[in-house]
Amino acid sequence: MTEIYILRLGHRPERDKRVTTHVALTARAFGAKGIYVSTLDEELERSVRSVVKRFGGDFTITTGIKWREFLRNFEGTRVHLTMYGTHIDDALPKVRTAMTEKMLIVVGAEKVPPEVYQAATFNIGVGNQPHSEVAALAVFLDRLKEGAGLRTDFHGRMTVVPCERGKKVVNDTE
Amino acid sequence: MTEIYILRLGHRPERDKRVTTHVALTARAFGAKGIYVSTLDEELERSVRSVVKRFGGDFTITTGIKWREFLRNFEGTRVHLTMYGTHIDDALPKVRTAMTEKMLIVVGAEKVPPEVYQAATFNIGVGNQPHSEVAALAVFLDRLKEGAGLRTDFHGRMTVVPCERGKKVVNDTE
Repeated sequence: MTEIYILRLGHRPERDKRVTTHVALTARAFGAKGIYVSTLDEELERSVRSVVKRFGGDFTITTGIKWREFLRNFEGTRVHLTMYGTHIDDALPKVRTAMTEKMLIVVGAEKVPPEVYQAATFNIGVGNQPHSEVAALAVFLDRLKEGAGLRTDFHGRMTVVPCERGKKVVNDTE
Repeated sequence: MTEIYILRLGHRPERDKRVTTHVALTARAFGAKGIYVSTLDEELERSVRSVVKRFGGDFTITTGIKWREFLRNFEGTRVHLTMYGTHIDDALPKVRTAMTEKMLIVVGAEKVPPEVYQAATFNIGVGNQPHSEVAALAVFLDRLKEGAGLRTDFHGRMTVVPCERGKKVVNDTE
């Protein structure tokens, strides 16, 4: 099974704190292995690791990386999600054919430098309308994994028991 | 075809500005008709309407509504997206069976009052892990509409032409 990592570009801790947290937690919930964030942000790291600690799994977060080097040296398929790219309906069959052991999914906040478009194996639009990198990442992963990401058992200390009305959480404090 | 509206609860203009904008634009891009936001936020209205004006369609935004009344009086299926709800894999067939002319999808920021769980026809978890209401909304709409939302032609003044590398936008200034 392909290991999927996310590269988050253009994160500004003040402005993008909440959206980047959503990107990271979405990546985890839909079955990715980890996220790399270009800007150093220890608070972001702490908040994502706190979710992993409570809800399980081995999702990793690394912030403050030299992303140009990282992107260039990544061995595997590089998918850049952008509203300007090939429509996901047309792109997904090609991505499946080209699947490698590892995949990197690049999502930017606002403008992304032209070199990312060049470095990407695929530039893919989850639709070609402006919306959200969180939405784009979620739908791309959901379709790529055909829903399997959302069925992962994270074996967490805390587990939500799905419930028609109300909240049920099992808290295994040993 | 079912008309879909979003109800966004607990929006705090300062803190949630960006995430609520993502919720609204995601709703539009995936084929919903409009969004209602509990808190008054004129800047949010302006920024969403500016996208509609440029990229087309007739998506509407209303902020500062009496959401309790609105939710109570809504005629149609009420779906509340929450990580505590029935897993989407199990819930979606039931939603399809219960489809009405109009549907309201409720998404909260942080904690949602217990009465929302009571008022909902369905409480649905897009997975049962903590992640993002933007991701949850996108995947719910994508699955419900089987991808048709992302194939909408919005007949906008600006149209993105999908492209393998780079950006191509047709700007009809007439």
